[in-house]
Amino acid sequence: MTTPATRSRENTRARLLDAAAQVFAEVGLDGASVEAVCERAGFTRGAFYSNFESKDELFLTLTASVADVRVSAVRTRVEEMTAEGALAEGCDPIELVQRVMELGGDDRLGVMLMSEIRIRALRDAEFGEAYLAQENEMVASVAQIVEDIVAAGSLRLRIPAGAAARMLMILWEGMTVRGAMAGQDDERLRHSGSEELARLVQLLIEP
Amino acid sequence: MTTPATRSRENTRARLLDAAAQVFAEVGLDGASVEAVCERAGFTRGAFYSNFESKDELFLTLTASVADVRVSAVRTRVEEMTAEGALAEGCDPIELVQRVMELGGDDRLGVMLMSEIRIRALRDAEFGEAYLAQENEMVASVAQIVEDIVAAGSLRLRIPAGAAARMLMILWEGMTVRGAMAGQDDERLRHSGSEELARLVQLLIEP
Repeated sequence: MTTPATRSRENTRARLLDAAAQVFAEVGLDGASVEAVCERAGFTRGAFYSNFESKDELFLTLTASVADVRVSAVRTRVEEMTAEGALAEGCDPIELVQRVMELGGDDRLGVMLMSEIRIRALRDAEFGEAYLAQENEMVASVAQIVEDIVAAGSLRLRIPAGAAARMLMILWEGMTVRGAMAGQDDERLRHSGSEELARLVQLLIEP
Repeated sequence: MTTPATRSRENTRARLLDAAAQVFAEVGLDGASVEAVCERAGFTRGAFYSNFESKDELFLTLTASVADVRVSAVRTRVEEMTAEGALAEGCDPIELVQRVMELGGDDRLGVMLMSEIRIRALRDAEFGEAYLAQENEMVASVAQIVEDIVAAGSLRLRIPAGAAARMLMILWEGMTVRGAMAGQDDERLRHSGSEELARLVQLLIEP
């Protein structure tokens, strides 16, 4: 049930998350203080701390929400493709990956954010634990999508869906970071590694 | 031919690289100034700049030399295993990966260094270009090792050796970073992802 208070609270959170993304884009993760984010969002520190325990929680929530949007978009695309029979037997893995990646791709800013979040996760044990927990949730979501694709296409995976999901995510992340390093623009970045991902998909499926 | 002058120059470079690693360990990449490295190594800035063009070049050289040591160790291990017939037909991919990874693994400091180097490569186009060029050389070296293993074991790869090398390196890197985030000690970190790597090896080889 969404009361005005609930809606207002969600709105505050959303605006703080937006502001966090903007400030990060300008000054990086270390430079993005709670103060700067509050100022950008137009809220008091009190409003901040009644929504987030800390800057760490704010940025972990930001990355989680970005990931959620992406996974949801991919899930919807897979459902569409299943409904239109595009995943039926004999579908082309390259085309599959490309149609899915159109929605799942990251932009340069997202790549920078994830890279800085990961450094923080390496430096701070508590943050690292929270980051890994969040990532494991995402692997589980992706594993479910993998299982749905496999079922729709009457395919067989050579390894468990969870392991396949983790491999696909790590390869996608690695190729995207390298695309960003090579200065690819956001349009091209969205398709970074689709060739390598398609290869992995072909390796993962029983011929 | 190694003259005293050459030996002295190599020695200076080696000491500067050692100092760079030490200073990095204490204050991170941004904090590791040329001054701090010179002070640690006991050299003047003049001595620094007659060996390295910049701090960027120093740290790229450091990561390249760490990678070279690792690749050489792996290559030597593969040659030993070939000579003892351990790679002959029917060898166990899991055992292969574990024996090779013993030497190829990274430690926590190495993971931190590579992560900070990658952020720099994302932020600075010139550095990014140099980093990617260096990495491509490493992929080529690993691809050669992959081909040697395939030949020794009379195996067949399902994808080109270069693509296989890149996939293996990206997966290894991803699993190692996650191991470091999870606080694994250096001993365990050295074997991070050997299960996932073994899975990928099995996927890469024609059954």
